[in-house]
Amino acid sequence: MTRFRLTVEFDGRPFMGWQRQAHGPTVQQAIEEAVARTTGETVVLHAAGRTDAGVHARAMTAHVDIAKDIAPFRLMEAINALIRPAPVAILGCEVVPDDWHARFSCLGRRYIYRIVNRRAPLTFEHGLAWRVANELDAQAMNDAAQRLVGLHDFTTFRSAHCQAESPVKTLDRLDVRRIDDVIEIEAAARSFLHHQVRSMVGCLMLVGQGRWSADDLSDALEAADRAELGLNAPPDGLYFVEARYPE
Amino acid sequence: MTRFRLTVEFDGRPFMGWQRQAHGPTVQQAIEEAVARTTGETVVLHAAGRTDAGVHARAMTAHVDIAKDIAPFRLMEAINALIRPAPVAILGCEVVPDDWHARFSCLGRRYIYRIVNRRAPLTFEHGLAWRVANELDAQAMNDAAQRLVGLHDFTTFRSAHCQAESPVKTLDRLDVRRIDDVIEIEAAARSFLHHQVRSMVGCLMLVGQGRWSADDLSDALEAADRAELGLNAPPDGLYFVEARYPE
Repeated sequence: MTRFRLTVEFDGRPFMGWQRQAHGPTVQQAIEEAVARTTGETVVLHAAGRTDAGVHARAMTAHVDIAKDIAPFRLMEAINALIRPAPVAILGCEVVPDDWHARFSCLGRRYIYRIVNRRAPLTFEHGLAWRVANELDAQAMNDAAQRLVGLHDFTTFRSAHCQAESPVKTLDRLDVRRIDDVIEIEAAARSFLHHQVRSMVGCLMLVGQGRWSADDLSDALEAADRAELGLNAPPDGLYFVEARYPE
Repeated sequence: MTRFRLTVEFDGRPFMGWQRQAHGPTVQQAIEEAVARTTGETVVLHAAGRTDAGVHARAMTAHVDIAKDIAPFRLMEAINALIRPAPVAILGCEVVPDDWHARFSCLGRRYIYRIVNRRAPLTFEHGLAWRVANELDAQAMNDAAQRLVGLHDFTTFRSAHCQAESPVKTLDRLDVRRIDDVIEIEAAARSFLHHQVRSMVGCLMLVGQGRWSADDLSDALEAADRAELGLNAPPDGLYFVEARYPE
């Protein structure tokens, strides 16, 4: 058995998320089937994160064990050829040690959330960003975001379906910046709760609109109560961009 | 009658081009129908350029005459609401003098062509860029591109269906730059021949691959013969980005 590490880019629009489902297409299934057609083996893919329906990845990291003797470059090319027309691309493929694990070896995850702040509806980016028509104050959003950085009980920002053992997490970074009419929110942590990034973004949007103050955001956090969540942002704007591992 | 100038963004993938066709959806038809549903009037839209099937626009300029008394902002909002789900957005709308013409008043047009230079197939940008797998030398492409700038007979780079009176045009600018794995080619001129940008890009790609030298490009230009064209780039990567008018 050889363990291969894959770097995966995917457009989440046609998928019911990363993880295999009884009904509906998933990224995991699409890749596992492409591997099966390449090697004849039934494989299970493990990923750094399990993204929801409609969430995208610029660089998800996953691993898979394969018995057949195949070079990493050939495996990558075969998956890319066989997975079409699904919008999934293997950007990198390398052999890793047998004890390296895409999920358990991961030291940190990073997401970017994209808001397009304009009145006109989206064309190229339909399903690839959250369009917010009212002018947002990115500086106020960034200032408020710093209230969430650090070790906190993130119960307010956690989905009812979250399976994590504890709602206490350390948020390493939450930066908000404006680039023309795009507002980019970057979140980094060892790990995130289910819906945590989308829930934080939803509340920051309220701050950007002036409907919430930074203190309102702090109050929501301290309440540790899902009912205090202002808004959960749609999956459209969310991108998994990096999984970090030991050198 | 009031003349309105429209700034239009569209994703060209589902369209048979800008101009109305007997069969198949076009951007012109989509907007004209949205105006008709707004005002009850049958209108004709005039544009700075008539893009081909699969070509996109970040900012096409068009105009339309409307009898009904309507504010520009309301007209824009109505078109944007009624044109869905077609990937067309009116980004700007203003009243212009009756003798202002989107096509005939236009002093210059600008296009950007996007090549994604990577092995992996496209996901988010499928149909929105030309994927070229072999490493391209953007510097060599930019150097060669300067051979095409200026006043020339562009017959080699002109479609057999071009309706322009003369193949002699002045190309004001043709810049090639690399931004990570994207190669962006920017072309500016008062006007272009049919397929001119795509034909120039196709030949520059051959230069980038090392299959053509800058001298080969000059030879093709001087031959003034369509048979000497190296390659016509696909529409996927082409964006109309600016129409320039007198102040």
